[in-house]
Amino acid sequence: MKAKVIVRLKDGVLDPQGQTIQRSLNKMGHEVTELRQGKYFEIEFNGMKDESAVRQRVEEIAADVLCNPIIETFEIEDIS
Amino acid sequence: MKAKVIVRLKDGVLDPQGQTIQRSLNKMGHEVTELRQGKYFEIEFNGMKDESAVRQRVEEIAADVLCNPIIETFEIEDIS
Repeated sequence: MKAKVIVRLKDGVLDPQGQTIQRSLNKMGHEVTELRQGKYFEIEFNGMKDESAVRQRVEEIAADVLCNPIIETFEIEDIS
Repeated sequence: MKAKVIVRLKDGVLDPQGQTIQRSLNKMGHEVTELRQGKYFEIEFNGMKDESAVRQRVEEIAADVLCNPIIETFEIEDIS
């Protein structure tokens, strides 16, 4: 099974990289009012067939490894 | 309106960062068979109300700025 996870900065946490991209887009004439950058992960588990077991495992991995809980949150987009 | 965009490496393009995370997870006892890392963007347009206009704009921005078309592909996850 494959899980898709999005890790984004919490609201209120500064995103200088996103701001830089936004300013570039504005200079190019795109009227973007905010741009925030996050991370995306695709995680494959060959041995596991049970969706709820995979979800539990992915939550553990995301909370422990993929995401810094002080400044980031994660969301499991899809498991299939 | 807000658009959500995922940028991922094309199949076959090496992802050393993803491989490193995968190896760490394996050492921690998680049976992950593949992990690939991508980027995620949330782009806000205050002045635009028409979804198809926003979609066209986002496709332009993703192809020109967010994504390196030689090694990456993008996908518009959601516009709302």
